[in-house]
Amino acid sequence: MITLSLSVSDIFFYYFPEMITVKKLLILFIAGITGCSQHYHSVALPNNPEWIDLSHSYDSATLYWPNNIKGFEHITEAEGNTPFGYYSSYRFCTPEHGGTHLDAPIHFAENKLTVDQIPLSSLTGEAVMIDVSHHVLADRDYQVGVQDIENWEKDYGRIPENTIILFRTGYGQFYPDREKYFGTQKTGAAAIPELHFPGISPAATQWLVENRNIKALGLDTPSLDYGQSQEFTTHRILLGRNKPGFENLANLDRLPAKGIYIVALPMKIAKSSGAPLRIIATLKSS
Amino acid sequence: MITLSLSVSDIFFYYFPEMITVKKLLILFIAGITGCSQHYHSVALPNNPEWIDLSHSYDSATLYWPNNIKGFEHITEAEGNTPFGYYSSYRFCTPEHGGTHLDAPIHFAENKLTVDQIPLSSLTGEAVMIDVSHHVLADRDYQVGVQDIENWEKDYGRIPENTIILFRTGYGQFYPDREKYFGTQKTGAAAIPELHFPGISPAATQWLVENRNIKALGLDTPSLDYGQSQEFTTHRILLGRNKPGFENLANLDRLPAKGIYIVALPMKIAKSSGAPLRIIATLKSS
Repeated sequence: MITLSLSVSDIFFYYFPEMITVKKLLILFIAGITGCSQHYHSVALPNNPEWIDLSHSYDSATLYWPNNIKGFEHITEAEGNTPFGYYSSYRFCTPEHGGTHLDAPIHFAENKLTVDQIPLSSLTGEAVMIDVSHHVLADRDYQVGVQDIENWEKDYGRIPENTIILFRTGYGQFYPDREKYFGTQKTGAAAIPELHFPGISPAATQWLVENRNIKALGLDTPSLDYGQSQEFTTHRILLGRNKPGFENLANLDRLPAKGIYIVALPMKIAKSSGAPLRIIATLKSS
Repeated sequence: MITLSLSVSDIFFYYFPEMITVKKLLILFIAGITGCSQHYHSVALPNNPEWIDLSHSYDSATLYWPNNIKGFEHITEAEGNTPFGYYSSYRFCTPEHGGTHLDAPIHFAENKLTVDQIPLSSLTGEAVMIDVSHHVLADRDYQVGVQDIENWEKDYGRIPENTIILFRTGYGQFYPDREKYFGTQKTGAAAIPELHFPGISPAATQWLVENRNIKALGLDTPSLDYGQSQEFTTHRILLGRNKPGFENLANLDRLPAKGIYIVALPMKIAKSSGAPLRIIATLKSS
């Protein structure tokens, strides 16, 4: 564009040197502006990003899948005064899958990535937040469909490649109330048939991995699949493509629909199928 | 493109030597560049940051303080085929302090912040890397002094307020070789008097919290205090100011001296004195 403009300028300049000088000034000014604009758009994150925590805390109220006999155990090793001052230290035990956590591909797909093998590029990047809470709060067995994604795209534009997709069902507001969150306060095997909470349909998951080459899926429920799922097909589709899932997310109501940057850092456990996840978001400045 | 345009201008001004116009063009061009440059500096993080992992993995080789009887335990709950396909799931137990982990203020300072209470603003931000490995590899009992920080500032400029300070001792290269890393392969109480690894001197820590208002300290050894410390004074100074510490960091050799942005996310454990830490860095683009 600039080269063409100057060629035109050059021709004019031959005849009307003063006029074209003005034009050149204008062109260079525009070039400067364009240069700035390109820089600005290619640098999305502010110098001091303000981060939003999308993670619940781990404690004795942390919710695990109902068949987990033990939940989060925090054991005191030391707590109190020593000759040199105060000192406290603890140890803990936890199933990999509970609270705000990551599902690694190997959780449901043999020979796929374990938590420590997931590249940071799959755990960080642009995200969109698809709010389906208006459907879902009225129907505990709702599964997010392709139509929900298409509706979002009508409002906000096509989801770019390599995006992290977050679904807000609204159920995050019930955490850690087991009955409201899982649909039953039972635990153990008896609870499984009575699980009623929303999830992402296998059709929507298939559509996203095939048509939008997403990085990861996350939501504010206990599982990518809805409570009544027996085959965990959504897990199998997503994890089978070596893409991780984020479950039991918090504070999704604090995110806009797009312009989100995510950093999702699971505890780096070798050979693990899942791990506690600390996940934070910041908003792009443009 | 812009270079070409100026060359074209030069040719024209050879025949129509209104040199003052060239100067004006040049001034506007420089003004444009300067404008860009200001934007560029105020927006430090690129659109798609490449992140460097500063975290070791947790597994049976993970190093804990020698008095920890049990290290990292990874327990299989399920692993193999089901009627619907492959499924694996595990649980784990670990002391809070071991591997790449965070020390919360309450670890050594009563009524100070627990891990879950540390604001994200203390865990993210600009960092500098002070490489003391040339001193330290020759002296296992070395304590980083004020002079090391002053020397760094002579080379790279004053450390800004609210910076995370990372010290590279070079001992990270020995992890997880217990003898090379701790100075002894003994475990239990008998190991404590034989611990020889470098740390940060109380004087340097005091200087940093008083004169540079740092956010946090981190290093590639088992402890902020050196191995021969009995009173853990460096811990008490730093944590007493409600600032966290990062220990057993990995890959500090991959960082430059400055222009670093850190995201340090501990597992969000309520009321905890420490937690496994996933810490990553990216380099500012200017």
